[in-house]
Amino acid sequence: MIIDCHGHYTTAPKALEDWRNRQIAALADGGAAPKASELRIGDDELRESIEKNQLAKMNERGSDLTIFSPRASFMAHHIGGFETSAAWSAICNELIHRVVGLFPDRFIGAAMLPQSPGVDPKTCIPELERCVNEYGFVAINLNPDPSGGHWTSPPLSERHWYPIYEKMVEYDIPAMIHVSTSCNPCFHTTGAHYLNADTTAFMQCLTSDLFRDFPTLKFVIPHGGGAVPYHWGRFRGLAQELKKPLLGEHLLKNVYFDTCVYHQPGIDLLTKVIPIENILFASEMIGAVRGIDPESGHYYDDTKRYIEASTILSDDDRRAIYEGNARRVYRRLDAALKAKGL
Amino acid sequence: MIIDCHGHYTTAPKALEDWRNRQIAALADGGAAPKASELRIGDDELRESIEKNQLAKMNERGSDLTIFSPRASFMAHHIGGFETSAAWSAICNELIHRVVGLFPDRFIGAAMLPQSPGVDPKTCIPELERCVNEYGFVAINLNPDPSGGHWTSPPLSERHWYPIYEKMVEYDIPAMIHVSTSCNPCFHTTGAHYLNADTTAFMQCLTSDLFRDFPTLKFVIPHGGGAVPYHWGRFRGLAQELKKPLLGEHLLKNVYFDTCVYHQPGIDLLTKVIPIENILFASEMIGAVRGIDPESGHYYDDTKRYIEASTILSDDDRRAIYEGNARRVYRRLDAALKAKGL
Repeated sequence: MIIDCHGHYTTAPKALEDWRNRQIAALADGGAAPKASELRIGDDELRESIEKNQLAKMNERGSDLTIFSPRASFMAHHIGGFETSAAWSAICNELIHRVVGLFPDRFIGAAMLPQSPGVDPKTCIPELERCVNEYGFVAINLNPDPSGGHWTSPPLSERHWYPIYEKMVEYDIPAMIHVSTSCNPCFHTTGAHYLNADTTAFMQCLTSDLFRDFPTLKFVIPHGGGAVPYHWGRFRGLAQELKKPLLGEHLLKNVYFDTCVYHQPGIDLLTKVIPIENILFASEMIGAVRGIDPESGHYYDDTKRYIEASTILSDDDRRAIYEGNARRVYRRLDAALKAKGL
Repeated sequence: MIIDCHGHYTTAPKALEDWRNRQIAALADGGAAPKASELRIGDDELRESIEKNQLAKMNERGSDLTIFSPRASFMAHHIGGFETSAAWSAICNELIHRVVGLFPDRFIGAAMLPQSPGVDPKTCIPELERCVNEYGFVAINLNPDPSGGHWTSPPLSERHWYPIYEKMVEYDIPAMIHVSTSCNPCFHTTGAHYLNADTTAFMQCLTSDLFRDFPTLKFVIPHGGGAVPYHWGRFRGLAQELKKPLLGEHLLKNVYFDTCVYHQPGIDLLTKVIPIENILFASEMIGAVRGIDPESGHYYDDTKRYIEASTILSDDDRRAIYEGNARRVYRRLDAALKAKGL
């Protein structure tokens, strides 16, 4: 089985964006926010938006199951306050739940949280509980910078975030550490902010002893870990200077990297440097980079091709990256698959 | 000849730090700032600080010449205003000038600029002129984020920065795009902020047409280009989505990457992905990562070993990376070497 652990609903019907625009407009002009019930998207529309897009590509490329969450760049936690984010994330998560209901063998949910800059993360717990208990979601996306590129929240190692971690441990769910749109003009969202956040999150873990407090906490660092594997020597050396244990001991029981790296040499570096058990297959398809690479003639984000073409990986390695590791990290996914006899 | 294009004076005598601390204390308590003349460091002290450190390592490792600039993390442009930065950079640049005077065959200078958040970059021009005209410096370090991790300045593509670029073009000197200490607790200085800035700067260039306005402007992106080479497919794909020319045309006539990547797989990726003519040898030795790699038994920052051990590079490639490319990018260095018959 091939599990893609990083998919967002980037192709939702336009009514979703229209609703969001009305919500934002109401914030600006002080009018009444639209009600959730005013968003009407039929099952046929949902089905079509998936069948023509993610599902078509999953079938073409040969992946079986996608861990699916709301569109990352649309989370935009910097807009409005808690109420705004709460209404918006409830709608987005419910849509994911409906998609999973329509294609239960091909998608399983991961939750967006109603984060807001300066707001205590424990306010996210009710939505998290709902997504796990009512919707059967198997993971969350945690935004380390709800300000959208101003980095005003404490590092992930601070107690500020502990209420989320306590719930993650209780539910045995991992978090993908994923920022949203940058509203800082210095940072291009997908070309700088995403990768910077990945590197930043890893380093926040490295300088801290977070996983001593939470030995079973699991973070997935997307986009191949930002700059981390390319600079693995630097990070090993920095850990050494900081008198931390070797990275295998210090971080790699808790931190995983996905394969959203869009060329063969990048995937080759990742799989050479990072232990295979810490690598999870992912494509973030129909995401930041949707084009066809003129050098290969294939989609940049068809990451399965790079895994297949690798001369470094054994068949056992591929199986671990495609399925085994994901089932170890996403325990509720594993349980859901086992319940189906898979 | 082996030219290391990225060295900072990280081993300056302690009197320098003491002077800076007095300057900072005066800012805090409103007292009088120390005068430049109150900093007294003798030639013997300067000589020793270099001979025992950078020069010893250059001789051990076999590099000939270092492009040497003030310590990057000590620039700390976020402290005080223009006057503070002006006094501090004048002192730091003068020390570099004296080191170059003591070891004229082994070091050549690059300038720190008196940047300050919210201050027009054109205020840096007098110090830049002094460093080039009086000290014979061949490059500058340009900090894209003088706020120290809050990213409050406009992107490098904005007209805000053009006065610096006009002077760079006039003098035919490149800028290494190098941030300083992070005062944002989210960003570890050398483990996150440096790499993030490299990626950010590259992407600011990618989304803009800066090099159409300045066809001869040259930027060196340090630390192996941050996350860029590892994600080269992503950046090629993003340029394509943004309807920009191919990166070779769009950026690689103006943007260069150094080899400050502290393990063999990273250097291998860099040299596989980035055209050889865009790679400049560098180590940033006695910098962020000073230890010995237990996996190799050698210093992490002994980057020459990785270049030597590469099975990808030809001898011609090595010569280009070690010398030829640097002489093309640092035109005043080339002229200085030629004047010595080198």
